[in-house]
Amino acid sequence: MNAVYCTILTIGDELLIGQTIDTNSAWMAQQLNPLGIQIKRRVAVGDVRIDMLEAMQEELQRTDILLITGGLGPTNDDITKGVLCEFFNTKLITDAATDSWVREIFEKRNRPILQINLDQALVPEKALVLPNKVGTAPGLLFTQEQKTIVAMPGVPFEMQYLMTEHVIPYLKEKYQTPNFLHRTVVTSGEGESFIATRLIEFEAALPDNIKLAYLPKLGVVKLRLTGREVSETSLNALFVDLIRRLGPIVVSTQDEDLEYTISRILHEQGKTLALAESCTGGAIASLFTAIKGASTIFKGSAVTYRNEVKKTLLDVTSIDDMNQTTVSENLAKEMAEQVRLKMKADYGLGIVGYLEKHDHDNSVWVAVSTAEKTVTKHFYTYYDRSKNIIFASTMALNFLLKQVEA
Amino acid sequence: MNAVYCTILTIGDELLIGQTIDTNSAWMAQQLNPLGIQIKRRVAVGDVRIDMLEAMQEELQRTDILLITGGLGPTNDDITKGVLCEFFNTKLITDAATDSWVREIFEKRNRPILQINLDQALVPEKALVLPNKVGTAPGLLFTQEQKTIVAMPGVPFEMQYLMTEHVIPYLKEKYQTPNFLHRTVVTSGEGESFIATRLIEFEAALPDNIKLAYLPKLGVVKLRLTGREVSETSLNALFVDLIRRLGPIVVSTQDEDLEYTISRILHEQGKTLALAESCTGGAIASLFTAIKGASTIFKGSAVTYRNEVKKTLLDVTSIDDMNQTTVSENLAKEMAEQVRLKMKADYGLGIVGYLEKHDHDNSVWVAVSTAEKTVTKHFYTYYDRSKNIIFASTMALNFLLKQVEA
Repeated sequence: MNAVYCTILTIGDELLIGQTIDTNSAWMAQQLNPLGIQIKRRVAVGDVRIDMLEAMQEELQRTDILLITGGLGPTNDDITKGVLCEFFNTKLITDAATDSWVREIFEKRNRPILQINLDQALVPEKALVLPNKVGTAPGLLFTQEQKTIVAMPGVPFEMQYLMTEHVIPYLKEKYQTPNFLHRTVVTSGEGESFIATRLIEFEAALPDNIKLAYLPKLGVVKLRLTGREVSETSLNALFVDLIRRLGPIVVSTQDEDLEYTISRILHEQGKTLALAESCTGGAIASLFTAIKGASTIFKGSAVTYRNEVKKTLLDVTSIDDMNQTTVSENLAKEMAEQVRLKMKADYGLGIVGYLEKHDHDNSVWVAVSTAEKTVTKHFYTYYDRSKNIIFASTMALNFLLKQVEA
Repeated sequence: MNAVYCTILTIGDELLIGQTIDTNSAWMAQQLNPLGIQIKRRVAVGDVRIDMLEAMQEELQRTDILLITGGLGPTNDDITKGVLCEFFNTKLITDAATDSWVREIFEKRNRPILQINLDQALVPEKALVLPNKVGTAPGLLFTQEQKTIVAMPGVPFEMQYLMTEHVIPYLKEKYQTPNFLHRTVVTSGEGESFIATRLIEFEAALPDNIKLAYLPKLGVVKLRLTGREVSETSLNALFVDLIRRLGPIVVSTQDEDLEYTISRILHEQGKTLALAESCTGGAIASLFTAIKGASTIFKGSAVTYRNEVKKTLLDVTSIDDMNQTTVSENLAKEMAEQVRLKMKADYGLGIVGYLEKHDHDNSVWVAVSTAEKTVTKHFYTYYDRSKNIIFASTMALNFLLKQVEA
């Protein structure tokens, strides 16, 4: 069976001058991959008519599906609809359904409706209109021979709504795709190159239709097995072998972030967690609270950035009276214990450290406290401030995971 | 003067299956833009030899500068160096400087060195080697006629190091670029389409070399004026006019995020801030702590996710004894006042709300407390959980900014 290829074309100057980070493409790829639709290329161009036409022309020659996002808004810099009309040699007409929907929205929020809002109902005559119930700009679907072209707004949740409600069901229906399977294992504690060396034999023995990819991140390395037209059973057999070879560095055998793994386990155990964050400054808390239903396992975090706050909020004793950063094993321990007691949690995690070189020191101390015992871990940060926050959070979560699994 | 064009080519399957979000392109664009180098296109392809060759071929035809990231790592799926040799018809040789640098690193961290680490010193003979002092894979610079091609690792901080230390100085030296100026104003409180309607005259009167772009985000709309070959003075004049027309919805006249504006003002005032976060769960705290030197203005955040913790940590009284979410103006007020007192801060901010529909309610209450008074604001959330966290944080920061400016 032939692979079905897709190109994602994102439109907007803001993407080219770096004012916006493109998160849409990754999301779309995640949705299409399980369908066996392969993203062959991702292309971004500015709000420039000729560049848009050129890109659509070129990409359509090498792909089956072209998904376009951006430039469907109501303002002058949104020229996608006009360009689509030119490309498909058609004209704009009013779509009655969209027109009444737009009016409905503005009545609901009782705000006066403007002409440019009503213009959202103008659509290319040759387009199949995909209703957008979370915004005013509908999706526009075109077909050319066997190919599918869809234009969607660039606003992430509008694009996501249109993909989920309309585009994905349409593509599932229309295309016969080869079966792709992925298995991802998350590791921590060993560098990419060390892992690769241990896996030389394993990689050499892989059949042509199965591929191993390394995805290093700060503090973790994800390894992904991708099989094309393989059975669950045979891929799983290889996956088990991979996990066995990786041994103790395996953190999770699901492609999920550490906070999800931890939440899952705590939920099963009916246990709760409280944090006392200094250097990570709320970063770990926001990882947990981003998870739906977090409150069943997550009690809260004392983000005690300044030393005086560590005292007033957590009554820790192991810091001097000056308001200078202090990093010690005892402090991390005290924070973990105190926050566990104050928030009446089963697990308390305390973390304190330097995000930037401090008298040539860049240590971080993490402590995890339970009713039985408090254990600590020490490590150094190597990167810049923002990376160190991610790195320290990841290391802390790795350490916490080991304790909740124990 | 002719514009100088650049294409960013990112390489890696992880970008195409959506396992990684491409933050490199945005960063690179931000650096190149002030140099007057225009990013014409951004292209992402997988770790596929033929796709890489095709992309390099095509993009070089329409750009002056081709910046490539990814696939320079030590593992088997990193094939960029081989493809570069093929493309430039050259072979791999050992770079002495890189070789000794790699050995040095592994000695420092005293870890055994592996062959695949040493292989990092293999570089295409025709390449100018750009030393990488934050990693093992050097940058590789090629020239073809007047064009420049640079390959860098995909690891963000390694790419950033190579760009800053080597690539940007090289490009500045080599290319004469037209002058581009940007002015960005951040607004909040009015939708994109309303703003656009108020600016119809303004936009119509803009000269051809000046462009206005709308950048809507959750809770804010940024407007960006871009001038090509204009004087500071004339662009500033237009910018002042724009700000005047926008009036009260202007939040900041610098392209900076709200937390930076607030930190700057508090720093000037010598005032401090303490947070009590419920629904935002540490998201606001991590915005502030991501700023270097945050501790001068930021005391900490009580992330009181569960009600019982609001009591134990903040002694708030206006919640019932059940551990169910409670959202009220009084609660937000109490949280703001208590956290200000407990952390001995000048400003206390309290926020409580629903991230998902709760008995058909999706209210959020924000309160900002000072020694003089406590003020509150109420709003609704419209999006999904993760968007609502960003939206609520933004609304809270907008409200806080108004108070610190008052």
